[in-house]
Amino acid sequence: MYEVELKLPADHDAVRERLAALGAREVRTATQRDTYYDAPHRDFAATDEAFRLREETDDGGTVSKLTYKGPLVDAESKTREEHETAVADGDAARAIAEGLGFEPAAVVEKERVFYETDGFVVTLDTVTGLGTFVEAETEVGTEAEVPAARDRARELLADLGLDPEENVRTSYLGLLFEAGAATAAETDASE
Amino acid sequence: MYEVELKLPADHDAVRERLAALGAREVRTATQRDTYYDAPHRDFAATDEAFRLREETDDGGTVSKLTYKGPLVDAESKTREEHETAVADGDAARAIAEGLGFEPAAVVEKERVFYETDGFVVTLDTVTGLGTFVEAETEVGTEAEVPAARDRARELLADLGLDPEENVRTSYLGLLFEAGAATAAETDASE
Repeated sequence: MYEVELKLPADHDAVRERLAALGAREVRTATQRDTYYDAPHRDFAATDEAFRLREETDDGGTVSKLTYKGPLVDAESKTREEHETAVADGDAARAIAEGLGFEPAAVVEKERVFYETDGFVVTLDTVTGLGTFVEAETEVGTEAEVPAARDRARELLADLGLDPEENVRTSYLGLLFEAGAATAAETDASE
Repeated sequence: MYEVELKLPADHDAVRERLAALGAREVRTATQRDTYYDAPHRDFAATDEAFRLREETDDGGTVSKLTYKGPLVDAESKTREEHETAVADGDAARAIAEGLGFEPAAVVEKERVFYETDGFVVTLDTVTGLGTFVEAETEVGTEAEVPAARDRARELLADLGLDPEENVRTSYLGLLFEAGAATAAETDASE
């Protein structure tokens, strides 16, 4: 599974109007609290990997997920291999990670409003300490499908009145770090 | 949470009769397939830790769990700190572990019949490649409660017609290794 994702800083009001005009469907609102871990044996900032515990709260309660993101396959669209599973006990997952020697490096919190349109999930993110962003994301099964999916993502962003050239490749965690709001030298994989 | 556990090789027929006489309740039968991982940064055989993916199948289907076991707190009863959570997607959990650099070291498969009596779980285990065992296990909240719990476990085993002195401290994985049936030098924590 390859995740193709573009995001850029944007005012949400204008994008919301365009989404409505496109017939996009608002599917969900959630709060995500992501803890990113440093590895005891690798420098994730250098290997461009990430190991994350996400605690996501919406109307249905809180769901915790463990995620591993491998090194980039396609730099422009930040495409990488990803493995994720929900865990029944987020506190136990945290204790397992820390027992194995992984240390909490930073926390990213955001409010997300999810829309679906034309095979993409468009997300309006409000990130604590950073501001508002729009993200367009889809998944493809093979690396060969990545370039076409990236082109479709760029077209979609243009349809939303945004400039795909403003695509920000740095993760929210990386942006927080650049802004001096995060303490760990994590970079792209922490998305 | 501290797990107090004693186990010994035993014929199941005689123990089953004693369990019935004690009024123990047979609560469940399950097959467990445990994959133990080697760490990329620590020698678990030396640190006496374990990281395991358990796939447990019973009448209700298959449940996967991730478990971390820390170093021994009490050597005689094999007491250690343990953190465990069910995961929704066992294959994803496996891919996360391997992505992070943990490598499958060995697999232990067993049929287990669980009984409950007097605050203990008594398990009749048939371990592929090793034979039949009986295990008595309970959990206590603090390390101070461990010695009394261990005494109760010994009394329970005696009530079942077994000799607590035959307690085997080596894990099934360790026993499989000693028998030449496992390929990894894992030891006590892999229980």
